[in-house]
Amino acid sequence: MARVSQEHLDARRRQILDGAARCFSRNGFHATSMQDVLGEVGLSAGAVYRYFRSKEELIEAIAGETFAGVRAAFDEAARTTPPPLPDVLIARVLRGVFERQNPGIDGQMFARLIVQVWTETLRNERLARFLQDSYTGLRLAWARLADAYRESGAMADDVSGDDLARTLIATAQGFIAQHALFGGMKVEVMEDGVRGLMSMRRPEAG
Amino acid sequence: MARVSQEHLDARRRQILDGAARCFSRNGFHATSMQDVLGEVGLSAGAVYRYFRSKEELIEAIAGETFAGVRAAFDEAARTTPPPLPDVLIARVLRGVFERQNPGIDGQMFARLIVQVWTETLRNERLARFLQDSYTGLRLAWARLADAYRESGAMADDVSGDDLARTLIATAQGFIAQHALFGGMKVEVMEDGVRGLMSMRRPEAG
Repeated sequence: MARVSQEHLDARRRQILDGAARCFSRNGFHATSMQDVLGEVGLSAGAVYRYFRSKEELIEAIAGETFAGVRAAFDEAARTTPPPLPDVLIARVLRGVFERQNPGIDGQMFARLIVQVWTETLRNERLARFLQDSYTGLRLAWARLADAYRESGAMADDVSGDDLARTLIATAQGFIAQHALFGGMKVEVMEDGVRGLMSMRRPEAG
Repeated sequence: MARVSQEHLDARRRQILDGAARCFSRNGFHATSMQDVLGEVGLSAGAVYRYFRSKEELIEAIAGETFAGVRAAFDEAARTTPPPLPDVLIARVLRGVFERQNPGIDGQMFARLIVQVWTETLRNERLARFLQDSYTGLRLAWARLADAYRESGAMADDVSGDDLARTLIATAQGFIAQHALFGGMKVEVMEDGVRGLMSMRRPEAG
């Protein structure tokens, strides 16, 4: 029996995940069968089932990679000293996520894949637990940064870091929803819009 | 044959839509049959089909009502003189939408229903066209308000009203996504987070 290198195993796994992502984003999770995935990647059932035994395992792996991408893009941006303000940060994170795309999947397809993962999460407890844990970690990391904004005087004293974190995460999620539903979203739209919010001044009384 | 009042027809339609929304939010759009909806509302097929001939017609009507709710909440908030700044505005809109809930559906269930409508939209062209038109109208209305912020000096001169509009819509969509996926979202979180963004100051150089 031929020895199989780790590199080969990883490449095969990558090939299967990319093909599954293409199928799911094109036809939807429910309308895609394992047979469709086999056809898309051009591998035998035996070769694929060695890595993933079900559509659920495939979507969990895709959700895991996507969240890891968001987290890595955020961590990278947050390592800058001083950390970038929210407009620059949100743009870096979105670019980081959308630049990590699979071959054969454009930005809108990728956004559609994420919206489908959300819907799947409503009915899949394991996926829900995984997403909940990832969300909690991301929220804590963003809240630490938001606390740093406040402590350095860049943000008002009485705003909760966690509230800012959840609002910025919401902005990123809404970007994904709009891109999935209507297409044509550009990272610059969110960057400029957040900059607009940051420029707001309450009109002086009198 | 008994004469049927418009009021009775409207109440019956309302009863069917509320029941369908409960079914969809509980079990998902795909796992719900028209038979399930009949059982939920306790009406005969003949009585229901007079109003809605398919699940698709039901979800289109629900999507239409939801968007009308967002639009009405926004229009109401925007009529105030001077119009509220984004933190107050986003809170009023979200409260307006989540207060228009159906009986038997809590906030998280309603948010889950919306995320399901998004996924359904990816595969339903009629729903996609409807949502696209509603989104365009909402975006124009919010952009007009954002232009007014800029003209009154409340926002920086070089920020696009449309970019601010899409960013605020994204915030509302992300609120819905987080509430659907993780529950426990409060409107005050977004209000405080947007206020935090509005309070941001770029640190002075040197």
